[in-house]
Amino acid sequence: MNRTLGVCYYPEHWPEDRWETDAAQMVANGLTWVRIGEFAWSLMEPTPDAFDWGWLDRAIDVLGKAGLKIVLGTPTATPPRWMIDKHPDMLAVDANNQTRKFGSRRHYDFSHLGYREEAKRIARLMAERYGKNPYIAAWQIDNEYDCHDTTLSYSDAARTGFQDWLAQRYQSTDALNRAWGNVFWSMQYDTFDQIALPNLTVTEPNHPHVLAFRRYSSDQVVAFNKAQVDVIRPHTDAPLIHNYMGRITTFDHWKVGADLDIASWDSYPIGFLSDRIEGTAKEKQTYLRQGHPDNQAFHHDLYRAIGRGRMWVMEQQPGPVNWAPYNPAPLPGMARLWAWEAFAHGAETVCYFRWRQAPFAQEQMHAALLRPDAEPAPALAEAAKVAHELAQMPEVGTAQSPVALVFDYESAWAWDVQPQGADFDMFRLAFAAYRGLRRAGLNVDIIHPETADLSAYKLVLAPGLMTISDPFRAALAAFDGIALIGPRTDTKTTELAIPTSLGPDLPNADVSVIMSESLPPSDAIKLQNGGKFRHWFEHLSGTGDVYLSTKSGQPAIMGSGSLRYLAGWPDDDTFDQIIGNLCDTLDIPTFDLPKGLRIRDTETHRFVFNYAAKARKWGDVIIPAAGVHWEEI
Amino acid sequence: MNRTLGVCYYPEHWPEDRWETDAAQMVANGLTWVRIGEFAWSLMEPTPDAFDWGWLDRAIDVLGKAGLKIVLGTPTATPPRWMIDKHPDMLAVDANNQTRKFGSRRHYDFSHLGYREEAKRIARLMAERYGKNPYIAAWQIDNEYDCHDTTLSYSDAARTGFQDWLAQRYQSTDALNRAWGNVFWSMQYDTFDQIALPNLTVTEPNHPHVLAFRRYSSDQVVAFNKAQVDVIRPHTDAPLIHNYMGRITTFDHWKVGADLDIASWDSYPIGFLSDRIEGTAKEKQTYLRQGHPDNQAFHHDLYRAIGRGRMWVMEQQPGPVNWAPYNPAPLPGMARLWAWEAFAHGAETVCYFRWRQAPFAQEQMHAALLRPDAEPAPALAEAAKVAHELAQMPEVGTAQSPVALVFDYESAWAWDVQPQGADFDMFRLAFAAYRGLRRAGLNVDIIHPETADLSAYKLVLAPGLMTISDPFRAALAAFDGIALIGPRTDTKTTELAIPTSLGPDLPNADVSVIMSESLPPSDAIKLQNGGKFRHWFEHLSGTGDVYLSTKSGQPAIMGSGSLRYLAGWPDDDTFDQIIGNLCDTLDIPTFDLPKGLRIRDTETHRFVFNYAAKARKWGDVIIPAAGVHWEEI
Amino acid sequence: MNRTLGVCYYPEHWPEDRWETDAAQMVANGLTWVRIGEFAWSLMEPTPDAFDWGWLDRAIDVLGKAGLKIVLGTPTATPPRWMIDKHPDMLAVDANNQTRKFGSRRHYDFSHLGYREEAKRIARLMAERYGKNPYIAAWQIDNEYDCHDTTLSYSDAARTGFQDWLAQRYQSTDALNRAWGNVFWSMQYDTFDQIALPNLTVTEPNHPHVLAFRRYSSDQVVAFNKAQVDVIRPHTDAPLIHNYMGRITTFDHWKVGADLDIASWDSYPIGFLSDRIEGTAKEKQTYLRQGHPDNQAFHHDLYRAIGRGRMWVMEQQPGPVNWAPYNPAPLPGMARLWAWEAFAHGAETVCYFRWRQAPFAQEQMHAALLRPDAEPAPALAEAAKVAHELAQMPEVGTAQSPVALVFDYESAWAWDVQPQGADFDMFRLAFAAYRGLRRAGLNVDIIHPETADLSAYKLVLAPGLMTISDPFRAALAAFDGIALIGPRTDTKTTELAIPTSLGPDLPNADVSVIMSESLPPSDAIKLQNGGKFRHWFEHLSGTGDVYLSTKSGQPAIMGSGSLRYLAGWPDDDTFDQIIGNLCDTLDIPTFDLPKGLRIRDTETHRFVFNYAAKARKWGDVIIPAAGVHWEEI
Repeated sequence: MNRTLGVCYYPEHWPEDRWETDAAQMVANGLTWVRIGEFAWSLMEPTPDAFDWGWLDRAIDVLGKAGLKIVLGTPTATPPRWMIDKHPDMLAVDANNQTRKFGSRRHYDFSHLGYREEAKRIARLMAERYGKNPYIAAWQIDNEYDCHDTTLSYSDAARTGFQDWLAQRYQSTDALNRAWGNVFWSMQYDTFDQIALPNLTVTEPNHPHVLAFRRYSSDQVVAFNKAQVDVIRPHTDAPLIHNYMGRITTFDHWKVGADLDIASWDSYPIGFLSDRIEGTAKEKQTYLRQGHPDNQAFHHDLYRAIGRGRMWVMEQQPGPVNWAPYNPAPLPGMARLWAWEAFAHGAETVCYFRWRQAPFAQEQMHAALLRPDAEPAPALAEAAKVAHELAQMPEVGTAQSPVALVFDYESAWAWDVQPQGADFDMFRLAFAAYRGLRRAGLNVDIIHPETADLSAYKLVLAPGLMTISDPFRAALAAFDGIALIGPRTDTKTTELAIPTSLGPDLPNADVSVIMSESLPPSDAIKLQNGGKFRHWFEHLSGTGDVYLSTKSGQPAIMGSGSLRYLAGWPDDDTFDQIIGNLCDTLDIPTFDLPKGLRIRDTETHRFVFNYAAKARKWGDVIIPAAGVHWEEI
Repeated sequence: MNRTLGVCYYPEHWPEDRWETDAAQMVANGLTWVRIGEFAWSLMEPTPDAFDWGWLDRAIDVLGKAGLKIVLGTPTATPPRWMIDKHPDMLAVDANNQTRKFGSRRHYDFSHLGYREEAKRIARLMAERYGKNPYIAAWQIDNEYDCHDTTLSYSDAARTGFQDWLAQRYQSTDALNRAWGNVFWSMQYDTFDQIALPNLTVTEPNHPHVLAFRRYSSDQVVAFNKAQVDVIRPHTDAPLIHNYMGRITTFDHWKVGADLDIASWDSYPIGFLSDRIEGTAKEKQTYLRQGHPDNQAFHHDLYRAIGRGRMWVMEQQPGPVNWAPYNPAPLPGMARLWAWEAFAHGAETVCYFRWRQAPFAQEQMHAALLRPDAEPAPALAEAAKVAHELAQMPEVGTAQSPVALVFDYESAWAWDVQPQGADFDMFRLAFAAYRGLRRAGLNVDIIHPETADLSAYKLVLAPGLMTISDPFRAALAAFDGIALIGPRTDTKTTELAIPTSLGPDLPNADVSVIMSESLPPSDAIKLQNGGKFRHWFEHLSGTGDVYLSTKSGQPAIMGSGSLRYLAGWPDDDTFDQIIGNLCDTLDIPTFDLPKGLRIRDTETHRFVFNYAAKARKWGDVIIPAAGVHWEEI
Repeated sequence: MNRTLGVCYYPEHWPEDRWETDAAQMVANGLTWVRIGEFAWSLMEPTPDAFDWGWLDRAIDVLGKAGLKIVLGTPTATPPRWMIDKHPDMLAVDANNQTRKFGSRRHYDFSHLGYREEAKRIARLMAERYGKNPYIAAWQIDNEYDCHDTTLSYSDAARTGFQDWLAQRYQSTDALNRAWGNVFWSMQYDTFDQIALPNLTVTEPNHPHVLAFRRYSSDQVVAFNKAQVDVIRPHTDAPLIHNYMGRITTFDHWKVGADLDIASWDSYPIGFLSDRIEGTAKEKQTYLRQGHPDNQAFHHDLYRAIGRGRMWVMEQQPGPVNWAPYNPAPLPGMARLWAWEAFAHGAETVCYFRWRQAPFAQEQMHAALLRPDAEPAPALAEAAKVAHELAQMPEVGTAQSPVALVFDYESAWAWDVQPQGADFDMFRLAFAAYRGLRRAGLNVDIIHPETADLSAYKLVLAPGLMTISDPFRAALAAFDGIALIGPRTDTKTTELAIPTSLGPDLPNADVSVIMSESLPPSDAIKLQNGGKFRHWFEHLSGTGDVYLSTKSGQPAIMGSGSLRYLAGWPDDDTFDQIIGNLCDTLDIPTFDLPKGLRIRDTETHRFVFNYAAKARKWGDVIIPAAGVHWEEI
């Protein structure tokens, strides 16, 4: 099977005479790729314009000659200390107007054009030097955009950039005042330079003001990334990659991804469970050492889409990490399971982070394939086992998913700005829908909000979209499966206002949201089928058919033909029931999976993953805890 | 019945050709009043000293000619953006020294004398223009003082104003040092300009220092309001009103109210339940769609007193709001119940907020009488029903309450500054007492802390007063009902020190508080009658009679003749028992009300309100959920 | 028995004609000591260089002549307001870069050398004036270092001081960069003045950077204290004392203590239980009015060590305090129990805080021996009873403890900087071990991390030491009892890196920590003996003997000979079991103490303290709630 493993490596952390040993051991354990360079600017350019490429030349040479393919990272997430003297205003500013100081990483402001030039400069120099190097088989640009909440900055650079961006978007303050409804509280502006960043206002700032700032901020990430793409591309044929962090929605990954060749992401299942993924206390306890069984799959499917089919895991958790509130060790077997799950979802390559545990600095408690004393850590054997299995596995291809889920970043910003209920969150809603699909054993594609053709799918879910785009509306009009739209979909204009004739505007279906309610955790709307809406409920009117009602007789699902609008946020059981019914209607086979089992079909094989801490039965097969099973289909 | 309904309207939000339709529909639904103008400064004066009154002239004309009476608001809560250029230092500063920026509302500092002049200027210009306009039947000054925590500011303007105020109050730093006990930690000042605002000190600042700042800050609100009163009064005979928010204690409403003719308040029962009113998780669940059954009544009674008998609800919640953590819809019927309850408590007018839901800006998710698409929202029919019922109802008058509850703003500041127990709060304590009175079915008057004559009452409660004023002490001495004083009443001097001979100083009753305890939620003081003190317990000494003891034999209620001192904070059941016993002694009839029922007597009728989500029996009458019943008495 | 009581007194708070009465009453109630002066700088030096010693001369005279011994405090915790004009930059700055303003106490920056000179000046002047005064029998320097989090400051003075300190410690930035592993994220520095304080970085700053700042900050406290010691010593033979607050770990008490003669501490058992000491909700409820039964003992034992055998309680809680979230009154008898417990643990003197409750300023709600009206508060009679009992008690001596517990401040900083699990805290871990020892009825010595001789002990516990010092390693090598090392002990270098060959480096025992896990509260590692590790678990390898295993077969206690490494954080029951087994092995008698009873042996007597709110049986003796029992041994 033509899928590969790799590892992240920091030659600058170790004595040069160790490099050959390390490289040989990587190869011996079946690793194909090695990622280097992404934090090493201070060694490449120790003082401004004085370069030391020697060590990097030699590291590339040693690794390459050992048989490894290299991903070379641009080091723009960690500008050296002298850079701050050169550009004292390049540091980002937090929402409380505090400068975010040098001393860790990601200490730069996406809006700062001077620093953007510096980033281009180092990327260009690296591309000129290594673009044709035969060992450099891929490039990584920067590292984990937005990590540590770095998309948004409230600096002077951001303010003036935002004012220019507004002037370009709206052309006149009159147009802006109208678009934002600034008449509301005498908030009209006379000139663009009167418009401040939307922090520290007396009460909440105008929602479209904040949405505009979110759009502007996302655009700066896109532009920062593209600046590097533009200087590297001319020098190399190798694919360009960024390693996204999971569950980050502050910038539009679709747009960043459009400028790159492969979308990779950094998968820390246990850290995420503790820190970033919703889940009941019970789930967090059950999957403490495995990660949430749907979280990795969601991100694989999301980034496979962002990468237009090409997806990697650039950093794979190998053991306890250092950064979550609590950091237990993975269940034995998980470092293998996670890799196989990534491959089943289409990953080309899975790189463990990192080769050898650093004994120093911020991440010294982050496990690796080797311990700090260079002895094997538990994950090394699991990686080697995966490598061995890969070698014996036939190609498995990628199966067509019957189901698509639309995911949109602008909508995430819209509901951040205007949650209306304290626990409303776009990722949370989309992930709730996704979990329901996965519990039913379905392959899922995550698709772009401007997808113009849905003919490959039988079932499409579109929860929480601020608006329905024109291409997607046309696709819906032509769709002959079932599209389950909502809740809260197309209930706003692009300027985050309520449409004059209310929403949604569905082709061939008369449904309007006439009132919205957010519900505290102690409350729910009971449904006629025994289910419940939680968090959110919309009162619908219209002439559409009612497919499901609330207990008190209000529409819960309403629509016509292929379009059905979902009026609330179903709890897990209700999602299961709704998805089950839709799949029955559409003749999509579903599964009643034992707890913790998840399946993913490829063209030729069905993969079964056991996230439970106990053995589970799959037909006649007993899959041990953290086990992986595959069978031909 | 000569009580009226109204609505808040923003002609500037809608096309001018819509105004007549709106006005006609208001009248058709029985509305009498329309409030306009309070956020429209930017349209009145788009650039400094260049006015556009035309649109407002026409709006007044359209509304007036349709038969509506107009409340005209001064727009000083929303100065236009150009005002900040004119007075860059007019923005308030928060306790962390951050300037509170333009971009929402209430962006001004009460201490800024330049802005105070601007507010006077626009108020005077409006009064000159519209003071004799026959359609302008009332004035609203500014909007919701302190909303978004705007009473306190830590600006330079506040600091210098505070220093002047201190110099006037204390005349010398020696006097101030003595009054504050600054000898305590070498905190003496030599000059008034050495005295900073009491934020960001190493540990808590001296309590009288903070209390002085709270008094100063309240005085600025009073002065800001009076500045507008003084320029409007000469031009109009219409009553002057402010619309207070509920549960705000940062400024002395008695003093603001003394300069106005009517006290109105903004009643958002469901938003308040979620956000601002104590209550058990169970109560919050039970009354999720109704609001706490005593919260509206409390504020009606409070503002009826602040308005010296004249009280309105200027903004009445009609459906889900946008600003609480969770925003469910009211139970059908509540928009009617809330209005009737206001009338029963003496409201002259109830105005729903607002006529039509704005599709844009910060409050776009706030429901109204009309939906954004101009179709009727559920509350419209309920309002029309109330209007119809009002027309058929005879006058009901106002009955004399047998019970009075003293409420004092300075005491609220004192216990904010010196809670001594983390959950001690003046409003909370007063509201706990009030709830007990209301559960017993009693009409309650809330009275001023300097009330000099109690002869109209049989029972007076005075919990949590920092001091007993001289007039009130004289009134107590002459009182022949029963006054239940305490806990924590008159245990301080006016400078927030402990009186030399301890407190309280009660006429004809020898009771002293010799030690105070605050109790965590897990603890309580058990009483001999099976009840409990929570939060607070005072050890009493003296020669007074003991009316109730703790289980361990300490006095729980002690006093002589008409005065009884309550040594702790009773829980709900204990308040019920204590109030029941006092009412028995005083021959005040009480009721054992079914859960969720509340009654209010007028001169001629008894009104019964069902806050429960189920029907309840009242004698032989079945009152449906959210129902209102009245009967002659 | 030659142990004494005392009290804190503020003559400057009361009329001069009251002093004699107060002094006489102190003596009449059996008090020996009176502490004065520590907050009175503004009265000693009302304006710069203009002194008023007269009042203090007279106060000393009155108190001394009444027969009291005086502890005179230097007033450097409360510089007068004029000092801020003289040194505007002497105020500390918090981690958010906010200046911590004048208006309470401890408003100075330990790094500010100008203020340090001022502190020396006033201390020298006092020493010159009162050093030979026969009534001055001890000196207190400053008051409660670090109270209100005042050790750390992010001021310019701190930054430049830190840079100098770094330059001295590391000599070159190359050395610093290597020591800190700054290569990790391109964090290398070229000059020392590039190194900022480690606050407000984008994500966490480099751990050794923060540890260095913690070391620097502690050194400033040591230097500030020593500056006063150096100017007072030449003028007096009286002992020099500081009154430490409990549970403060931000500076190295061993180092401050080395410059002083006696370590005293301020014991507020009930305030601490509420605010600063871990405990289950049940414990907090059980001991609400008593304080945690092991907290006072721990601090007595700690400060007895810090004072090299000489320990006082300088402030003893007498009733409700003002500063905890909730402030209930002590159970009757506790003011006596706490004093006797202190004496049993070796205290020479116990001073109640304070003589008379101040009716004004921040601590007006803090109880005292007298009420504000000068009547006796409940604690006065308890103090008098203790004085009476002391007079009748023979000398009891100090027994040799069989058990020692190592406590290290640098380790506390290390785990603050790098907790790895959200609830990992050095004090918490050490206190958990201590509690287990005390529940077994053992006398415990707390010892210095560089203790070179352990021959006095049978059992030594060393949990959570960042490193094992060379002297302590040598002592361990020679030890013939049992040393229980770990968890997390010696797993780092002194620069907070992982040792090249992993840790710990134990003499004669081959044990290595190869992986560390932190556990959320919902998880635990089950042990073969039925016990559990919580919070923390380390995977061990090596050839040592396994004394206890986890249920899944990993080593839980491993070692050789006298050294045993503990691989996790035992819960209370497991600590009981482990300690019980070790004591059995070592023939140390233990006790199965009824709930709430604690014992402490002196040379001649066993003292039994009943912290329970009910009577408890000790053999045939019934000890009432809050009772103390002693018997000869």
